[in-house]
Amino acid sequence: MPLAGEDRVKLQSLQGLIADDLGVLEGEYNSLLEGDLPLLQHICDHLKLGRGKRFRPTLLLITAKNGSGVNAEAVFAAACVELVHTATLIHDDFIDEAETRRNLPTVNAKWGPSAALIMGDWIYSKVFALLTARDMVEPMKIIARTTHSMSIAEMIQLERRRDLNLSEDDYMTVIRRKTASLIEASCEIGSLLHPELVKKRTSLATFGLNVGLAFQITDDIFDYLGDDRRLGKPVGGDWREGRITLPFIAAWRNAPAAEVARLQEALAGERGAELWPDVCKMVQNYGGVDYAYEIAHKFGRHAKDSIAELEALPQREILTAAADYVLGRLH
Amino acid sequence: MPLAGEDRVKLQSLQGLIADDLGVLEGEYNSLLEGDLPLLQHICDHLKLGRGKRFRPTLLLITAKNGSGVNAEAVFAAACVELVHTATLIHDDFIDEAETRRNLPTVNAKWGPSAALIMGDWIYSKVFALLTARDMVEPMKIIARTTHSMSIAEMIQLERRRDLNLSEDDYMTVIRRKTASLIEASCEIGSLLHPELVKKRTSLATFGLNVGLAFQITDDIFDYLGDDRRLGKPVGGDWREGRITLPFIAAWRNAPAAEVARLQEALAGERGAELWPDVCKMVQNYGGVDYAYEIAHKFGRHAKDSIAELEALPQREILTAAADYVLGRLH
Repeated sequence: MPLAGEDRVKLQSLQGLIADDLGVLEGEYNSLLEGDLPLLQHICDHLKLGRGKRFRPTLLLITAKNGSGVNAEAVFAAACVELVHTATLIHDDFIDEAETRRNLPTVNAKWGPSAALIMGDWIYSKVFALLTARDMVEPMKIIARTTHSMSIAEMIQLERRRDLNLSEDDYMTVIRRKTASLIEASCEIGSLLHPELVKKRTSLATFGLNVGLAFQITDDIFDYLGDDRRLGKPVGGDWREGRITLPFIAAWRNAPAAEVARLQEALAGERGAELWPDVCKMVQNYGGVDYAYEIAHKFGRHAKDSIAELEALPQREILTAAADYVLGRLH
Repeated sequence: MPLAGEDRVKLQSLQGLIADDLGVLEGEYNSLLEGDLPLLQHICDHLKLGRGKRFRPTLLLITAKNGSGVNAEAVFAAACVELVHTATLIHDDFIDEAETRRNLPTVNAKWGPSAALIMGDWIYSKVFALLTARDMVEPMKIIARTTHSMSIAEMIQLERRRDLNLSEDDYMTVIRRKTASLIEASCEIGSLLHPELVKKRTSLATFGLNVGLAFQITDDIFDYLGDDRRLGKPVGGDWREGRITLPFIAAWRNAPAAEVARLQEALAGERGAELWPDVCKMVQNYGGVDYAYEIAHKFGRHAKDSIAELEALPQREILTAAADYVLGRLH
């Protein structure tokens, strides 16, 4: 295995193992992201420029891979999952009033809120229409349930925006529903399309869920560590948008009462965004990043444990490497 | 038949024929419109206050009715159709920045655009998740296809907002996709749940499509005729929101060049909303309302023709009366 022994797993190494499927995926994704109206087409073209990492399709395709060439149904499902992810980002960016995504203007910033809303609806409904037209009932069930779960997470986030008392449990609920659910869905759908893994559906779903949790926590840590290039998003974005994440939650409960009171007072008087340097310092000083790092690793271990039973299949080693990739992003 | 011979069919008379099913529908709709977060629940409660006419569920239930008591699957599908309608209105009101709907503040006006966006997503995804969880594959296919069609109509409307050159064909495309498609879906789904009408699926879909076209055209006429109470929406709302409809399109092409030029010049200089009295007069003077009325009646006839073959079934007379109700709203 080329992945073994590497200190830091690269996404490209994983993607190299399913290069043929990913090639077909790109074509499928691009052909689904076509509209027959000028405005739709402009937005589709723009979305194609901001190419994502294809992390979810990669997991789906690795899971479904079984040595008999490109799995057309898996590729189609993987394109659907990526489209759902794209739709979610469009609606997210509207809610957050984000200006940029992947170093390009967001749909909201470029075409306005109505176009962002309709574009998300257009993509979601296209995915559902295509999956049902192809009678892919089980993937459809999983994706429908997942998008519903994601909408609940959005509502919780809206309700709890700027709520400094958000608990770790509340945070976990949000990231489980909002991010981990689609990664879970990717692995679960992948397992359904593999002749042997179909019996291990629950294990694969559990793997995806845990990788998804680790993935979101590492993303949330990035927002504090600061590396603009890595995400194409400005540092401190979560805080500015009122999203309270694990590094803050952990530091906030560790910080001495005087420090908490000082920051609370400052927040009452000033605009929150201006206090970002203080918040960042507090999170570093009181172990917020370390704690989040620890929790991300815990979920990484859970993920690997959940597929330990797949001894005879290559998926065990490759998916283990995928979990390592997620955690390795922190170094 | 209590409906025959009436000059003007009342929706209540039609609904009286399926009172039991509609009673169960209300319970089903209300129980689906429940959320386990405070914010979700507040919005759900608010939506229940602004009760609609239940026109789409009525058509679905009339179509599916077969004399053997309440059809639980039809009631559930009818609730799903009404929920999709509700979600569409929430997103619509966001796009139009509408302040009121059914004499209540819109979700957008009361809770803001993010809540409106998420609420629509929550309802759509709930419908899809429930339909697939119940393995109602055909209704799911129809509803998925329909919501996609509706999103395309929204995009056309956005693209052509305030475009005085919108053709009658373009207008027809928009109302077919945006309004008629869900009424078509209601009748088509109803037919699938009736032991004999399942063979007449296409006829019922055609009926619904034509009734839907007539329904939207009469709605668009109301906007010019002016009856605030009937729709719970202010008169002239379409014009103010930049929606060019059939009465305008027809009058605009009939109006003498001098009148067109005068209005165009005025529109270039002033805010469109302030010209509403002039636009309204132009539409009345150049036969816009009469023409739209004629076209609505044409679709009403098409609707009735498409179910002429259902001679032996009570649906023929009841659905004919439903088409008459739609047209009768104009008197």
